[in-house]
Amino acid sequence: MTTTQLIAEIHRKKSFLCIGLDVDLQKIPKHLLETDDPIFEFNKAIIDTTHHLAVAYKPNTAFYEAYGIKGWRALEKTIQYLNTNHPEIFTIADAKRGDIGNTSSMYAKAFFEDLAFDSVTVAPYMGKDSVEPFLAFEGKHTILLALTSNEGAYDFQTKLIDNKEVYKHVLETSKGWKNSENLMYVVGATKASFLGEIRKIIPESFLLVPGVGAQGGNLQDVCNYGMTKDVGLLINSSRGIIYASNQENFASAAAEKAAELQTQMAEILAQ
Amino acid sequence: MTTTQLIAEIHRKKSFLCIGLDVDLQKIPKHLLETDDPIFEFNKAIIDTTHHLAVAYKPNTAFYEAYGIKGWRALEKTIQYLNTNHPEIFTIADAKRGDIGNTSSMYAKAFFEDLAFDSVTVAPYMGKDSVEPFLAFEGKHTILLALTSNEGAYDFQTKLIDNKEVYKHVLETSKGWKNSENLMYVVGATKASFLGEIRKIIPESFLLVPGVGAQGGNLQDVCNYGMTKDVGLLINSSRGIIYASNQENFASAAAEKAAELQTQMAEILAQ
Repeated sequence: MTTTQLIAEIHRKKSFLCIGLDVDLQKIPKHLLETDDPIFEFNKAIIDTTHHLAVAYKPNTAFYEAYGIKGWRALEKTIQYLNTNHPEIFTIADAKRGDIGNTSSMYAKAFFEDLAFDSVTVAPYMGKDSVEPFLAFEGKHTILLALTSNEGAYDFQTKLIDNKEVYKHVLETSKGWKNSENLMYVVGATKASFLGEIRKIIPESFLLVPGVGAQGGNLQDVCNYGMTKDVGLLINSSRGIIYASNQENFASAAAEKAAELQTQMAEILAQ
Repeated sequence: MTTTQLIAEIHRKKSFLCIGLDVDLQKIPKHLLETDDPIFEFNKAIIDTTHHLAVAYKPNTAFYEAYGIKGWRALEKTIQYLNTNHPEIFTIADAKRGDIGNTSSMYAKAFFEDLAFDSVTVAPYMGKDSVEPFLAFEGKHTILLALTSNEGAYDFQTKLIDNKEVYKHVLETSKGWKNSENLMYVVGATKASFLGEIRKIIPESFLLVPGVGAQGGNLQDVCNYGMTKDVGLLINSSRGIIYASNQENFASAAAEKAAELQTQMAEILAQ
């Protein structure tokens, strides 16, 4: 999917919501555990009730790998379900991969070709030759970790190199990489006040913003500091939406939570 | 496996060799492609001819994920084969994972419990709360990326924060994390001359050292600068061993290459 298509979809749905599909079998409704594939059944139900409210879905691969082959099959079925029924929706493999060149190429093949995700999250620590293999895929997007939502972000990301934070070096350096037009960046909603500085370095790039909801980030703050003329934001909520209820009504409860965020987003877009 | 057991095994085999099981279907012998599970058959043959020469095996998860469910099943079968037939061998899931706390816990569960690896490689960018969930597993080891073997290592890892390189901050900071005794570190063989400085910070920790062979690192240099009284090194070779031949004799050709390295290691240990 091109960025232009994503922007059009955001305006059509009046939403820049991404829903994180982080399925934990200990948290989903008990009745689903009796089905053949509880993870996929959970995702399908959530997608069916929320797809008109969200422009992106983001399964985090950890939650699938934790269940081995069954988990990987559920991930395959989920992305196939999305690509078949909602090809207009932007899909993100939240995998935070990154390795030496020939190995990153294998990861890129896994997520872009075999699973046919539109994008994948990648860690920057290993530098240019660990990220460029992902960027080489036309029509695909590489979402580089810049400033993450967790407390540990302050361990290294905000430390100063030549009076400039590590994450700013990541932003600036990555702009010079081959096919950098395929880059987006992760910036945590809990770091909204940093977005003004970030926009000076990457004025137009799309940002994937996790941390609204369970982690305490504020939607209005993120938009005040980070929104561009083409929106430029995908705001993710995972637990706050998908675990709104653990009863039989879980999917409609998730839709209510998603609708609350979408309504706020529509108001912000109308400002 | 405890570090003490690993050290005993190193002395018993006179080897600190780790063999990287990075299986690319385009590089393995053609006749294996006719079997039901070419990836596992390749690994099994390599393990059968080299297990007396190596103290560790390291499948890189990228090469399995690239083949979807078939790949994940081959990974499961490979680790089961190792744990059943060679429980004395140290196993490394080269996964380079790392995410916010609850998500890292899912990765740790995937690699330590479900797949029953002895260790997993983890990226440091997201800091303390992304790594500690791995460290919480008793008898398991977390191998943190410090200074990697690739060219991109110079993009961020060697940049200076307060006159000290980023990778040194990673080493120092991580020593203060909970259960840090379960930490090992990745340092590329191509950066052997850095090992003297690294040993000042982590005098005894085990290092996983990739980059000998195809990437150009030198075994003697690594040992000169990085070896401790308890060896403290696992030297990895992947392509240089497993792709020594792509003919029917591939497994014995791999054993010859592994034996060359093991012989050099035995000489170094005898010095």
